[in-house]
Amino acid sequence: MSFDRLIAKIIETGNPTVAGLDPKLDYVPEFIKKKSFEEKGADLKGAAHAILKFNKAIIDEICDIVPAIKPQAAYYEMYGYHGVKTLYKTIEYAKSKGMFVIVDGKRNDIGATMEAYTNAYLGSAAVDGKQFEGFGADALTVNGYLGTDGIAPLTKVCAENDKGIFVLVKTSNKSSGELQDKLLAEGGTIYNAMGGMCEKWGEDTIGKYGYSAVGAVVGATYPEQLAEMRAKLPHTFFLVPGYGAQGGGAEGVAKAFDENGLGAIVNSSRAIMCAYQKEGCDEQDFAKAARRECLRMKDDITAFVPALKK
Amino acid sequence: MSFDRLIAKIIETGNPTVAGLDPKLDYVPEFIKKKSFEEKGADLKGAAHAILKFNKAIIDEICDIVPAIKPQAAYYEMYGYHGVKTLYKTIEYAKSKGMFVIVDGKRNDIGATMEAYTNAYLGSAAVDGKQFEGFGADALTVNGYLGTDGIAPLTKVCAENDKGIFVLVKTSNKSSGELQDKLLAEGGTIYNAMGGMCEKWGEDTIGKYGYSAVGAVVGATYPEQLAEMRAKLPHTFFLVPGYGAQGGGAEGVAKAFDENGLGAIVNSSRAIMCAYQKEGCDEQDFAKAARRECLRMKDDITAFVPALKK
Repeated sequence: MSFDRLIAKIIETGNPTVAGLDPKLDYVPEFIKKKSFEEKGADLKGAAHAILKFNKAIIDEICDIVPAIKPQAAYYEMYGYHGVKTLYKTIEYAKSKGMFVIVDGKRNDIGATMEAYTNAYLGSAAVDGKQFEGFGADALTVNGYLGTDGIAPLTKVCAENDKGIFVLVKTSNKSSGELQDKLLAEGGTIYNAMGGMCEKWGEDTIGKYGYSAVGAVVGATYPEQLAEMRAKLPHTFFLVPGYGAQGGGAEGVAKAFDENGLGAIVNSSRAIMCAYQKEGCDEQDFAKAARRECLRMKDDITAFVPALKK
Repeated sequence: MSFDRLIAKIIETGNPTVAGLDPKLDYVPEFIKKKSFEEKGADLKGAAHAILKFNKAIIDEICDIVPAIKPQAAYYEMYGYHGVKTLYKTIEYAKSKGMFVIVDGKRNDIGATMEAYTNAYLGSAAVDGKQFEGFGADALTVNGYLGTDGIAPLTKVCAENDKGIFVLVKTSNKSSGELQDKLLAEGGTIYNAMGGMCEKWGEDTIGKYGYSAVGAVVGATYPEQLAEMRAKLPHTFFLVPGYGAQGGGAEGVAKAFDENGLGAIVNSSRAIMCAYQKEGCDEQDFAKAARRECLRMKDDITAFVPALKK
């Protein structure tokens, strides 16, 4: 099962965190942008080229200490098809360095259309009798609002190809409660119902660490709900956004883990990509600053997860 | 406001339907595939090239009788970044022919990330002080599970750039009720609550036909809910999938319209793209067959929408 591969990488590195690669052009050091614009043009193509160089340098510096990256599709799509090519190249490069790749796309649809998304990110497309991977990621975030019709095509491919998904359950943003916290007539909240569906969708894909291929997104900014979901969803692996920039602290995040220090991976994006700006170091040193921030984050979180600490 | 432009096109053509361009490679005639594979290779690049030729030929044949196209992002992403380039080129071509373009991407996220999606599809990205459109669509489908934080970036750009969004409310698939039909403790269903949020999100962008820039996706397969939503959401324009292939009939679909014959646009995808297969005509005639199906669909639906019938 897919999350077995991710969990093995987490144990190997002693690091339950994922580096979010959400590269706004503002985050890219000037010297990289200048060179890319000169070589490729000061346009979407040049922007996409600059972002790829930025990503690769960060991946080079962190691939031995961080188990996974999570590129956010929106930041690549913003630069059009050139940006989407950079998403592909980033995934390819991270995999070549042994990292697990979670595409954060929050995709959702039904039937044949959801199969197309599944083929795009976790499977392959048939062309003239041969199969080709569109993006070749290891996992994809998805939105379960459409019910089982939107998830079944994914779980089938997850089982066949050793991949995983994370379903949005309780998101980290301030207004997440507008819909997700509403109480149902049958009892419990909407996010509770969504969490319950994750356990059900995953029941046939439970791996050797006790977690299925159907994970859940549960925000670091709601520690009580994290603890509640951890207790109620024993086979659901969590992707936890909202640590750091959005205000989630390490002590709260610790509630996402089980007694073995497993069961969750915590994301940080901006703090890693912009570490050089925060440090005030030379921008040439951006990738090493990203590494320093990854190590700081690892120490911060594992201090509260003693079972995992190396 | 954006849907004023769409509604004006619907009135002009007397046709409240949209052609879904969800091009699986299986739908593309052999003669196009053969040529594309020879020219570009029998791979993702060749597939993307074949799909673009297919799309353009259909657009050429229907642009005078159909107000809009709705490319479904999944079918382009399945062919990797080459496919995404075809999505861009398809949008560009349809706009050059005067069509309104709805990208069906069901995107969703929060804050800066949702801004990135908004910039990608409805706005533009800044590169070295200039603005560049990533995809340049007129409207985007979105998923509102994350609440107002996920919608506010869109409504701002809709107002500024004369664009629109469609929020998933009650989808057309069989399992849509698993979550969407659940009863809330406060009364009403989850899809009701989502519909109410659409009215609220749109209240500052109501155009001259009485509809805001925030529309809703309500499936043709649930006519009762269509009628219910039409009555409860007077300022929310509907995108109605599920007609034809999924089983929604014209009489049920008619419930999506107001007394002026406005308020909704009905999608059909496979029946248009594969009309030549169903007709059994020469595959060289695929685009004219698509046109015939568009006219058949228009007549079928407008028979129940007399106020719009030309």
